Amino acid sequence: MQDIKTYIEENKQRFLDELFELIRIPSISSIASHKPDMERCAQYWQKLIMDAGADRCEIMPTAGNPVVYGEKIIDPKLKTVLVYGHYDVMPVDPIDLWKIPPFEPTIKDGKIWARGADDDKGQAFMHAKAFEYMVKTNQLPCNVKFMLEGEEEIGSSSLYKFCEDNKELLKADIILVSDTSMIAEEVPSITTGLRGLGYVEVKITGPNRDLHSGLYGGSVANPINILCQMIAQLTDENNHVTVKDFYKEVLNISDAERALMAEAPFNEAEYKKELDIAELHGEKGYSTIERVGIRPSLDVCGIWGGYTGEGAKTVIPSTAHAKISFRLVPDQDFEVITERFKTHFESLAPACVKVEVTPMHGGYAYVSPIDMPAYKAAEKAYQAVYGKRPIPTRSGGSIPIIAGFERILETKSILMGFGLGSDAIHSPNENYPLNQFFKGVETIPYFYKYFAEL
Amino acid sequence: MQDIKTYIEENKQRFLDELFELIRIPSISSIASHKPDMERCAQYWQKLIMDAGADRCEIMPTAGNPVVYGEKIIDPKLKTVLVYGHYDVMPVDPIDLWKIPPFEPTIKDGKIWARGADDDKGQAFMHAKAFEYMVKTNQLPCNVKFMLEGEEEIGSSSLYKFCEDNKELLKADIILVSDTSMIAEEVPSITTGLRGLGYVEVKITGPNRDLHSGLYGGSVANPINILCQMIAQLTDENNHVTVKDFYKEVLNISDAERALMAEAPFNEAEYKKELDIAELHGEKGYSTIERVGIRPSLDVCGIWGGYTGEGAKTVIPSTAHAKISFRLVPDQDFEVITERFKTHFESLAPACVKVEVTPMHGGYAYVSPIDMPAYKAAEKAYQAVYGKRPIPTRSGGSIPIIAGFERILETKSILMGFGLGSDAIHSPNENYPLNQFFKGVETIPYFYKYFAEL
Repeated sequence: MQDIKTYIEENKQRFLDELFELIRIPSISSIASHKPDMERCAQYWQKLIMDAGADRCEIMPTAGNPVVYGEKIIDPKLKTVLVYGHYDVMPVDPIDLWKIPPFEPTIKDGKIWARGADDDKGQAFMHAKAFEYMVKTNQLPCNVKFMLEGEEEIGSSSLYKFCEDNKELLKADIILVSDTSMIAEEVPSITTGLRGLGYVEVKITGPNRDLHSGLYGGSVANPINILCQMIAQLTDENNHVTVKDFYKEVLNISDAERALMAEAPFNEAEYKKELDIAELHGEKGYSTIERVGIRPSLDVCGIWGGYTGEGAKTVIPSTAHAKISFRLVPDQDFEVITERFKTHFESLAPACVKVEVTPMHGGYAYVSPIDMPAYKAAEKAYQAVYGKRPIPTRSGGSIPIIAGFERILETKSILMGFGLGSDAIHSPNENYPLNQFFKGVETIPYFYKYFAEL
Repeated sequence: MQDIKTYIEENKQRFLDELFELIRIPSISSIASHKPDMERCAQYWQKLIMDAGADRCEIMPTAGNPVVYGEKIIDPKLKTVLVYGHYDVMPVDPIDLWKIPPFEPTIKDGKIWARGADDDKGQAFMHAKAFEYMVKTNQLPCNVKFMLEGEEEIGSSSLYKFCEDNKELLKADIILVSDTSMIAEEVPSITTGLRGLGYVEVKITGPNRDLHSGLYGGSVANPINILCQMIAQLTDENNHVTVKDFYKEVLNISDAERALMAEAPFNEAEYKKELDIAELHGEKGYSTIERVGIRPSLDVCGIWGGYTGEGAKTVIPSTAHAKISFRLVPDQDFEVITERFKTHFESLAPACVKVEVTPMHGGYAYVSPIDMPAYKAAEKAYQAVYGKRPIPTRSGGSIPIIAGFERILETKSILMGFGLGSDAIHSPNENYPLNQFFKGVETIPYFYKYFAEL
């Protein structure tokens, strides 16, 4: 495997050209008008996988965006790795905060800047190139399957059924995923836990039409004021979520494990400086690492109502809206929590307004044990490239389908993420350092080698 | 004056044609791109006033939108009436709730439907036609001045200086305004009080960029959640505004006057049914009529932050925003109240966020005594047309410049409004009943007659 460095060096520009072509397709899954881009993106992935050396690759329809499935079976008796990634990306607003057009990838300061540069086009693409290297140099030690979906950013809703329907096709010894981050450029880590997710939209309706705030101000409930009061009641003075039984199934972590977690490098001053905040804010009784790793949270992801344009318009709007997400941990069930939220939120509404809670999507949390063979293989792979043992970490983010794979396919996943905390995924100016990208392509073949050997 | 009915009957279609041409100009003062429409609208008013019989009419520049000033001085020794109106209109969003395009006036069910149909194009236009009638039939009993501004919906900011600079030009015995409503079609009333107004925009900044709500959810203050908590704290459980000293200068109304106010017709069941609300909501200890007439109020007119598009995006936004208005009563000073609000709101912000409060505009409340000559003349005018004495009422709305006229020009205003509560001003589907429009044109000449005689 020593020639992987040379292979990367010789093909560098081509890798980037191909990745940029992938990034240029604005495959935003949450906006219906981008449907044709989803199709185009799936077709481009099909070409990438075939060109890299797969035996076959198909675009398989679902109720939503299609799944790209490819494979190279060298010997059914050998182990099989299923590579999972997603070709859809997040929306780009607020667009005015981008320093470059989000779908025109640009290299600056040693980084690729674009929507999807990291999440997940850049990271998934590393697997196509690592696979290409192993095939072209005849070093592939096991069977490989690829599965790329187009709905990860909207909850992978079609992929659950796709997995149910294709259990045999997707059979594998491990699912290999690069859609997470490592601690720092020189501090490799493997994500061993992911939070689950619940997401709802709420709507408060006051009067049946927008009203003049002079003629009615003071006599009629303003749905924005009421919505704010209801949201304010969702957390208490200790930043605990007040939804009844919200924490009931939360797995308590032992003091010993909490002590281990506390050893992970964390610089509070740096963290605050990097975000330009004067103070942290979170659940009382837990550290920052614990707050995002082992504790659930609740955030309003969007709010709107009334006049939001230029200037001043005096109005009592008819409706006010919010999008609210909760990050969940083992063993919280997102459907149960969503139902509890709905009941609780509805109970907060005074009789002067109407309230609607619409569940949008959700997913379970996931924990990967550090004693499984794939973890050991990944550990050795990082060791080979970085010269040090990776740290097992818990991520605050969610990839709900990972828990779905375990439930439906009965297959564990190994999360070899090469992103960095500064990649601004889901934000304006998403980026992916070239060094992380190339190190990823370099590390992945070692995983295959050690996983096949174990 | 008995021929006014005939005059209206004979010129009906022309009146509507001219009014519709006025309405078709989308003169939205709060949106900068409509600047050319403001100019066009001022020019059209100039033509209307000259065609109606004025000696002269000019478009006079200000720092903002121009003022249209016209006059007919028949004898400097006679009384002078200054007619005030505005040619700007409110924005039209949410546009999808309109049943007709807002700038294509349509007659249906005996009403004119369009933005500005009532506020204030329809109502101001009545004065042009009443004046035309008096001039053409040689019945004008006094001098008339017209002043139409283009910034009423954004706080009349240029008109204050215009008045300061043109005190002599604007000298009058009374200012005559139609920009309010009457109780019902068959219940004429004269507005004797207007609430004042304060309007601010607030901005809460958390992290310096939008963050992934999984990676950061639970560890960083979400500016939307914080904004909601701050807004929730602006009122207490009795719906009293909590801003320190907010009520300090509120003029207390005597029990006797409150008893009189309580005699005005008000049907709570109808009021709730018409707005489709199950319960009223307002300051404890006051009736609905009092809440909108003699008590100040606080409303969030707009709120926005985070992802507000289609679908689900998990994000902790960097900023959250709201537009907040307060309706004020005598003797609250909007600048003092705005300053108190700013201090209070800033004090509510926890250290984990930054807060900015930007005052937008404001105006004083106004009270018109029912024993002044102009009130008596107006009373007789309604009596002549409606056959009954109008009821003096307090409006919850604000026309801040009316208090400005009193302060700068030292001239009282008489508010002869012909709108109805159902006209949906500032809302989608604004409308103005034809009957109100023609009754207005019919009533106004009587005011001139009786005012000149007194």
